[in-house]
Amino acid sequence: MSRYKVVVEYDGSFFCGWQRQRSDFIQEADDVNPPDSANAGAKPSVQGTIERAIFKLTGRRALVEGAGRTDAGVHALGQVAHFDWDTPIEPYRLLDGLNFYVRPYGCSVLSAEPVSADFHARFSATSREYIYKIVNRHAPLALEKARAWHVPRRLDVASIKQAAESFLGTHNFNAFRAAACQSNNPVKTLDILDIYQRQECIEIHAKAKSFLHNQVRIMVGTLIWVGLGKYSASIITELLKNGGRVKSGPTAPPHGLYLSAVNYTPAHKNNLNLDHDKKS
Amino acid sequence: MSRYKVVVEYDGSFFCGWQRQRSDFIQEADDVNPPDSANAGAKPSVQGTIERAIFKLTGRRALVEGAGRTDAGVHALGQVAHFDWDTPIEPYRLLDGLNFYVRPYGCSVLSAEPVSADFHARFSATSREYIYKIVNRHAPLALEKARAWHVPRRLDVASIKQAAESFLGTHNFNAFRAAACQSNNPVKTLDILDIYQRQECIEIHAKAKSFLHNQVRIMVGTLIWVGLGKYSASIITELLKNGGRVKSGPTAPPHGLYLSAVNYTPAHKNNLNLDHDKKS
Repeated sequence: MSRYKVVVEYDGSFFCGWQRQRSDFIQEADDVNPPDSANAGAKPSVQGTIERAIFKLTGRRALVEGAGRTDAGVHALGQVAHFDWDTPIEPYRLLDGLNFYVRPYGCSVLSAEPVSADFHARFSATSREYIYKIVNRHAPLALEKARAWHVPRRLDVASIKQAAESFLGTHNFNAFRAAACQSNNPVKTLDILDIYQRQECIEIHAKAKSFLHNQVRIMVGTLIWVGLGKYSASIITELLKNGGRVKSGPTAPPHGLYLSAVNYTPAHKNNLNLDHDKKS
Repeated sequence: MSRYKVVVEYDGSFFCGWQRQRSDFIQEADDVNPPDSANAGAKPSVQGTIERAIFKLTGRRALVEGAGRTDAGVHALGQVAHFDWDTPIEPYRLLDGLNFYVRPYGCSVLSAEPVSADFHARFSATSREYIYKIVNRHAPLALEKARAWHVPRRLDVASIKQAAESFLGTHNFNAFRAAACQSNNPVKTLDILDIYQRQECIEIHAKAKSFLHNQVRIMVGTLIWVGLGKYSASIITELLKNGGRVKSGPTAPPHGLYLSAVNYTPAHKNNLNLDHDKKS
């Protein structure tokens, strides 16, 4: 049995999220039809789409484990997953074979490589990185419509930057997680929360060992309320000390969020196959 | 009669190009249905979409003149157009009114302002700027699928930069225009042709008073052949001296191209309404 690690990019607009849905199983049973026609109107999951591609490529069922579950609409530039397969295959054949099946669905496998049996996409991860994109202008978005959060009222970016600093370090992030969050421990350590502005575009870059459910989106929603003057920058410290979810800002929409990278120890470092011509 | 100038952003994927089509008139006659359902399968033009928005907003037909015609699939970050209208209207009402009608179609009006009667979107333009986006990696594109040209084989960017320099200045660009190009004079002056690379993304920025039909796309296609080693960098000088279209590279696909800006004399400078809160 060999374990393979894949790095995956996807356009969240086309998926109901990372996690396999009941409808994905229905679709598996019906190999002739692509997911979208088999289950009219419902979007496929990314996990189900990759599992179907493995099935079509190898004729065998494999369970694909992802580093993190992204919600419907959330994009990924570097989601990581692993699965086991009993037949040796050259990585470039695996890469091109999977892409043949996933590319029509707004998904692309950036790299595929064999890893040791102790590698686990989720549990071996040393940190995760997210990018949240905002466009701050009056006019609606044409090109970035499903790629960024459109905030029409002017944001005070200096206040956002000031407020963002309070998030850094180890805190109880209970006020910044979804009601449905299943984590036992809301204490997390945030390593990076950087704000970049270039004309009307604002990017928020976050990095931590792990995040609570919706943590980035609620942090961003609260920061935007600070930027709009609905909250003062000091609200963050207050919420981290004693706040419940009810006092924090709104959950920012999913389509501005990108899972940009998942990091591992050097032994399991992502080796993106950017060497286009080399077939190994 | 007042003349208005608008700056427009659009996602070229949703349009058959800038120029009004016969089907746009059919759609006008059928105000109830949106363009896509009125003319099943056919994409609307940007010009027709804006003209329909003006008609719905004002009840009057106006001819919208654009600074340049973009082909099907080509995007715009800053297309400029003008039209005449006999009733005074506050610019912010015009802006929001037009956006109400165009935003469902992947189009956004970034600014709207009254200009003097001698302003002409096309003839008053002092220069045009284009950006061409390329993603150079083995794996297919998920997020940038309809937004960049995917070149899977490795490009020699140093050669591309070297070749690009030969394009600068005044030349006969006959080898770099479409067979259907209607311009009487193929002599053009290229002011800027800059190549930017950031990891797998390559951007080519071009600026000139005006361009021939498909000029940017054929220049890019030829540069990419240089980058792939099919042509040496010296081909550009040769083609500018004596080449016909047959010897230049392929026409790069439309979906990598963005009309990024159209510039005017200070009197007609674009005043983007980025002051979100101010209603004038």
